[in-house]
Amino acid sequence: MDSPELGNNIYSLIEALYPICRSITGDGFRRSMDILKKYVPLELHEIASGTQVFDWVVPKEWNIRDAWIKNSQGDKVVDFQQSNLHLLNYSLPVHRKVPMDELKEHLYSLPEQEDWIPYRTSYYKEYWGFCVTHRQLQSMTDSEYEVMIDSSLENGHLTYGEFLIKGESEDEFLISCHSCHPSLCNDNLSGMGVATYLAKHLSQVNTRYSYRFLFIPGTIGSITWLCLNEKNVKRIKHGLVIACVGDPGIMHYKKTRDGNAELDRAVQHVLKNTGENYKLLEFSPYGYDERQYASPGFNLNVGNISRTPHGQFAEYHTSADNLDFVKAECLADSYAKCLKIIQVIDQNRKYVNLNPKCEPQLGKRDLYTLHGGRKDANNFELAMLWVLNMSDGQSSLLDIADRSGVEFITIQKATEALQGAALITEVDEPKYRCLS
Amino acid sequence: MDSPELGNNIYSLIEALYPICRSITGDGFRRSMDILKKYVPLELHEIASGTQVFDWVVPKEWNIRDAWIKNSQGDKVVDFQQSNLHLLNYSLPVHRKVPMDELKEHLYSLPEQEDWIPYRTSYYKEYWGFCVTHRQLQSMTDSEYEVMIDSSLENGHLTYGEFLIKGESEDEFLISCHSCHPSLCNDNLSGMGVATYLAKHLSQVNTRYSYRFLFIPGTIGSITWLCLNEKNVKRIKHGLVIACVGDPGIMHYKKTRDGNAELDRAVQHVLKNTGENYKLLEFSPYGYDERQYASPGFNLNVGNISRTPHGQFAEYHTSADNLDFVKAECLADSYAKCLKIIQVIDQNRKYVNLNPKCEPQLGKRDLYTLHGGRKDANNFELAMLWVLNMSDGQSSLLDIADRSGVEFITIQKATEALQGAALITEVDEPKYRCLS
Amino acid sequence: MDSPELGNNIYSLIEALYPICRSITGDGFRRSMDILKKYVPLELHEIASGTQVFDWVVPKEWNIRDAWIKNSQGDKVVDFQQSNLHLLNYSLPVHRKVPMDELKEHLYSLPEQEDWIPYRTSYYKEYWGFCVTHRQLQSMTDSEYEVMIDSSLENGHLTYGEFLIKGESEDEFLISCHSCHPSLCNDNLSGMGVATYLAKHLSQVNTRYSYRFLFIPGTIGSITWLCLNEKNVKRIKHGLVIACVGDPGIMHYKKTRDGNAELDRAVQHVLKNTGENYKLLEFSPYGYDERQYASPGFNLNVGNISRTPHGQFAEYHTSADNLDFVKAECLADSYAKCLKIIQVIDQNRKYVNLNPKCEPQLGKRDLYTLHGGRKDANNFELAMLWVLNMSDGQSSLLDIADRSGVEFITIQKATEALQGAALITEVDEPKYRCLS
Repeated sequence: MDSPELGNNIYSLIEALYPICRSITGDGFRRSMDILKKYVPLELHEIASGTQVFDWVVPKEWNIRDAWIKNSQGDKVVDFQQSNLHLLNYSLPVHRKVPMDELKEHLYSLPEQEDWIPYRTSYYKEYWGFCVTHRQLQSMTDSEYEVMIDSSLENGHLTYGEFLIKGESEDEFLISCHSCHPSLCNDNLSGMGVATYLAKHLSQVNTRYSYRFLFIPGTIGSITWLCLNEKNVKRIKHGLVIACVGDPGIMHYKKTRDGNAELDRAVQHVLKNTGENYKLLEFSPYGYDERQYASPGFNLNVGNISRTPHGQFAEYHTSADNLDFVKAECLADSYAKCLKIIQVIDQNRKYVNLNPKCEPQLGKRDLYTLHGGRKDANNFELAMLWVLNMSDGQSSLLDIADRSGVEFITIQKATEALQGAALITEVDEPKYRCLS
Repeated sequence: MDSPELGNNIYSLIEALYPICRSITGDGFRRSMDILKKYVPLELHEIASGTQVFDWVVPKEWNIRDAWIKNSQGDKVVDFQQSNLHLLNYSLPVHRKVPMDELKEHLYSLPEQEDWIPYRTSYYKEYWGFCVTHRQLQSMTDSEYEVMIDSSLENGHLTYGEFLIKGESEDEFLISCHSCHPSLCNDNLSGMGVATYLAKHLSQVNTRYSYRFLFIPGTIGSITWLCLNEKNVKRIKHGLVIACVGDPGIMHYKKTRDGNAELDRAVQHVLKNTGENYKLLEFSPYGYDERQYASPGFNLNVGNISRTPHGQFAEYHTSADNLDFVKAECLADSYAKCLKIIQVIDQNRKYVNLNPKCEPQLGKRDLYTLHGGRKDANNFELAMLWVLNMSDGQSSLLDIADRSGVEFITIQKATEALQGAALITEVDEPKYRCLS
Repeated sequence: MDSPELGNNIYSLIEALYPICRSITGDGFRRSMDILKKYVPLELHEIASGTQVFDWVVPKEWNIRDAWIKNSQGDKVVDFQQSNLHLLNYSLPVHRKVPMDELKEHLYSLPEQEDWIPYRTSYYKEYWGFCVTHRQLQSMTDSEYEVMIDSSLENGHLTYGEFLIKGESEDEFLISCHSCHPSLCNDNLSGMGVATYLAKHLSQVNTRYSYRFLFIPGTIGSITWLCLNEKNVKRIKHGLVIACVGDPGIMHYKKTRDGNAELDRAVQHVLKNTGENYKLLEFSPYGYDERQYASPGFNLNVGNISRTPHGQFAEYHTSADNLDFVKAECLADSYAKCLKIIQVIDQNRKYVNLNPKCEPQLGKRDLYTLHGGRKDANNFELAMLWVLNMSDGQSSLLDIADRSGVEFITIQKATEALQGAALITEVDEPKYRCLS
């Protein structure tokens, strides 16, 4: 699949998901998972409200049918049907006349962006409210309004989608996306779209690692999953939280808690070799679900890849994070970079030079130019010399790529040539095949 | 005590000490200690001349009553009563007529500063001499002068003052000041003044460490103390030599021999968070008494805090290092920074997260904002998340402050809040109370 | 010997070697060694063709008597007697008329440098050819030429020269020069000249290390030597490949595979203290014989010292790398720097302070200024204080020089003074004398 087609396909998936009012529980989340199931065989899990998950409790399930505010003339001045962001997410049901003085306590707007609706939630404090444009707020001059929220907050379930692609090894690479935001495209329909297409691709090739994809509600979802899967968490060797990957900004990578994990080095290698601008961010315990994966009791090597990071674009958590804000070509580019990162990790093996004393004679194996006297070795010959020199069983191909300044893919191909000539052998070669 | 009052108080103490002619032994040193005893209950130690202290011997005690040079008309052209710097410190007694040719060998002046008297000593070579302004020297055109030094150099004692404030632990924080210079304000009445007020404060609060204050003659004093207290030296975990802290220059900190000791990191944290300019200096075995504390047989983590370092201000070791050169507000500022450094070290404990798997739910404990969707956590919430994430029993609060970029005091308050909610506990909690 | 005389002497040796047609085997190499034997008592080794050396086989011996190309008028248009670079090194014998179309496949020129002859070889592929100026090539318009190469490629020997200077220790410092290039001055008659004079000097002084000099054919020579001497290779603690040291460029040093070996630090110390520009290059498994010494099965700490590195000067591997390109003063300068590096390594011992608790009283030993109060210690006093402070048995003199910023030679002299005063003693003092 070429890149423009791929970008368009991811964009189409986002378009299909956009109208649905998702939350951390409820039918909106379920309907979204049903759409993703058309692409990859997601397994849906339903966890009952009230289930204790570490320090937290799975909340009641929230469902929403309709909501509006009518003025004294009976006109809807705020209407959930126009944008599901209008409702404070997880609002309690209500239907009564409310004096404007009281109503103001339940209205949220952005004075600095008059035409944008903010996105606000109240998951853990039972409340109700509406998010409105500042222009709407200013025009609400009646002394009393009729408020209607047709929602339910009752015992039910928290839903999440999971998909495991088995590789040669039981060691896992985790890809995690929060999927609980309503009509917000970059945060995080973009991550859901890119991750879905990564899952689709990886399920069709052979890999060393097993790849686990999680489509979960933010925070409570990762906590729930970690709690229910506690005994297998140690299988996760690397992980990426994918979010905000559809805007035109440069790539950002927030490092793992370790800060110098294999994943951190792989991402840096890939981003550096793009020749494009990018930015590395140090780990911080604030952000997306990497917070939970990196809690000291788990300490997983999970990084966060994005274009413009959360909170750093004006459209963040507003109605302006819409279908215009994300671009097919940016989605395709994010996908390609994520896949390269995964490929580096998947192929980052260690070898031992079987002819460690002096160089082997590459020329007689047709691996080396036979006429001498030229100024320089070519890049492929140099890559072979590096692999031979550093294959002491301790250095990985990524170590060699980083030290030599030669791109991983060239090092990897040189390795194949040398392995073909029986000059090197993999250390503790596991039984897996190539990722293509 | 507010800062201006404190600065004035330190300045007043310096004024009281200024006229006294101190040396490495003798009554001038004793009288100075008597003045400090009005502030803190110093214990005075008297060590007999001739006592072997490592490679050195406690010298004879020197006392001075008067000294002058008279010209052929009988006028005093150089007079110890005008400035005790006029005498080469530790001069032998003499009273005779001296031809100018011979006298020149005993006169010290500063050609580049015509009106300043240099400060010179001859502790370990028996000699006599006078320090004069260059203008004085140039006006001494007689062929012969009458020279009188009414001093004594006899078996006696070396004196030093010591004050131990017991904390919860026997581990010690050492504060050391050379106190042997005569009328020189920045070097080192400023250090004596700031140290005295630190001792006064620390004796009134509860501390984790025990604090040992030494007011000693330079070099021979620290050697003597180390020799006499050799078996307890290992209790000293951190130490500061305080000197030259009254001038208007920026703060300088000379690192410990280790270069990356807890103290070094604490000082850097405090100075960096002032937002003011400062300069870090690498350790060198030249300077003040940190040379002795850092000798390889002891290797104590003792740094040296100053404003403009010794030898780097024109007034250094001259009569211009006088009461005009040091400023009350600079003394107060140095005091405040030293105290902050001490507080960081004293409170730099380690904790364990009691809920290490995923974040605890801070909201239900009223520690966290309940409405979601905002762009950023506030600084205090961020500090709590950092403390939770890094409290694995290995990282100290200073480690957390440094990694997070959050100021130590905020990290420390977040720690208190989390401890109050029983979410973390101190590692090997010693029985001590707070330093306020 | 003063520096201009030394430079002229090295240059004269290069002049004597220049006309000889060397190759990786043969009489040209032998005759070159015979010239070097007039300076140092080289031992010549002859290794039979066909000898297996690790993955390689010692090649047949190549000898050349004459070679030319005649045009249809019988004029020699290319003549080996004019420059031995005209012949593709290791060319098979041939004597026949060759159509120009075929001949073109056997001609090498440099279009970008019309008057320079390139240097090309075909050691491991049996072939014949001529290297010509581009101007020559363009004037060869005949349809057929008579080609004559009077060479032989037969079983014989590979020759190399070796010289071991025994020091107090069996640990060795290796100096290796490829000596297989025909009329090329910088690469590598310059290295052979500098190494010969280093060997001459070191054989006349007492040294701690033993010094092994190798004059070998590139690649196959070092592989052969390593194979035949495999069991003693571990004696080599440091090594330098010397090449391209006669041009006017700045000094370059390519680090050992380790990258932070004692040798790397010694070279950096010496080059930094010259006050001149220089450049450090990271290790790479491409270059000269350091490639073989640094193969993972040996992993020797061998660096490569040069002025402009191979391949980075236009004259590299062309007839322009001639007697005009190298300069006597550059050769003398390279010699002096190599010797300084060797001296640092040879004298880089460790000491223990015998008076580790506080400073010893240097004044009473006449090692220190007795009058106090000056702004600064002088450099020699500072060097003594550093040696005393850091002589804990772990730090070498180079460690002390690097940390203090004081030049090695001053640290070394301070060490001698302290040792003379019985204040320090060498750790595990071996029985050797000084290198002068």
